[in-house]
Amino acid sequence: MRSSRLERQVQFLLEIDKLKRVVRRSYVCGGERRENAAEHSWHTALMVLLLAEYSDSPIDPVRAAKMMLIHDLVEIDAGDTFIYDSNASVKQQVRERQAADRIFSMLPDDQAREFRDLWEEFEDSHTAEARFAKAVDRLMPLLHNYNCQGKTWREHGIEKSRVLEVNQRIGAASTTLWEYARELIENSSDAGFLSCRPVDLSPQDPGA
Amino acid sequence: MRSSRLERQVQFLLEIDKLKRVVRRSYVCGGERRENAAEHSWHTALMVLLLAEYSDSPIDPVRAAKMMLIHDLVEIDAGDTFIYDSNASVKQQVRERQAADRIFSMLPDDQAREFRDLWEEFEDSHTAEARFAKAVDRLMPLLHNYNCQGKTWREHGIEKSRVLEVNQRIGAASTTLWEYARELIENSSDAGFLSCRPVDLSPQDPGA
Repeated sequence: MRSSRLERQVQFLLEIDKLKRVVRRSYVCGGERRENAAEHSWHTALMVLLLAEYSDSPIDPVRAAKMMLIHDLVEIDAGDTFIYDSNASVKQQVRERQAADRIFSMLPDDQAREFRDLWEEFEDSHTAEARFAKAVDRLMPLLHNYNCQGKTWREHGIEKSRVLEVNQRIGAASTTLWEYARELIENSSDAGFLSCRPVDLSPQDPGA
Repeated sequence: MRSSRLERQVQFLLEIDKLKRVVRRSYVCGGERRENAAEHSWHTALMVLLLAEYSDSPIDPVRAAKMMLIHDLVEIDAGDTFIYDSNASVKQQVRERQAADRIFSMLPDDQAREFRDLWEEFEDSHTAEARFAKAVDRLMPLLHNYNCQGKTWREHGIEKSRVLEVNQRIGAASTTLWEYARELIENSSDAGFLSCRPVDLSPQDPGA
């Protein structure tokens, strides 16, 4: 007989299969298709494990890797948010919190609490682990963009100044990785992967 | 300036992006497409973390989860092997070992050694962590098949006796999960997801 505990764990595991359907803006290397949030979670978990030594503060790499494994689960309900889309951020936070309520509560209480706390920690970014996880979550798309000739940036007309602004939080976790990221951004700019048009200061439609 | 150490780590991370192209036989829940090995690695890492309590021997869940994150990297070169394809297994072992030589050696020596040892441990299955990781690697496709009306089994004409044989190694790690797996297999058989034809004892083409 299955225990109801095991049944809840299995139902959660089946539910999170849906993360494989959440398509991100980033392309896989080679650029033939966009990656999904499950693949991204795997890739960034390994990135955290491999690059933890570059955190300015000592971190528990395993704790940060666990964060990466679950950080996007809320996107099953809330969808992916493009990091360069500043208009989406407020509504998205509400949607993600509702998603966290629903998805994590599928687990037995102790595991629901552990995963919810880990997700809250990632969102709040008050710990060194969370800051490093956030940094890696930024650095990975930068790497992908750089290796796809800026495909996502070009599709959305993203400018160098915006890339520097959005990615500077890498520097809150790692001087080395932020230095590396800036080098990628400079090289991308030099190679024409990023536009450097003067900022348009004309009145904009706030809903656009 | 980038250190050559960081450069090697980044090149490895870009290389393993290719795991997102390795398509498995299992379908994502819903059955609209086959899953890839990167998604599978993410999913099984979380499965190990959530179900570790069912290991018959105490295990370090994090060590087993790390195994899941890297267990399929060799498939970048060697491709995926269908667990019900017994003919492929010998050549596949050689290909996978060559792949491990190439892929892990891209990392700095200390990390290459750590990942290689972890992969060897998974392959050898001499530790409780490796046995549990192997069990989860079997249980996940079972769950997917059961929730896709046996789609992969039906496509390849897999019989119940073969499913029981291949998955019995789940029982080497966890009495509870093997009991659960057998229940899934019985239910699949009752629902007609698995064929139960009498075994064909006529001479077979050994190369087929």
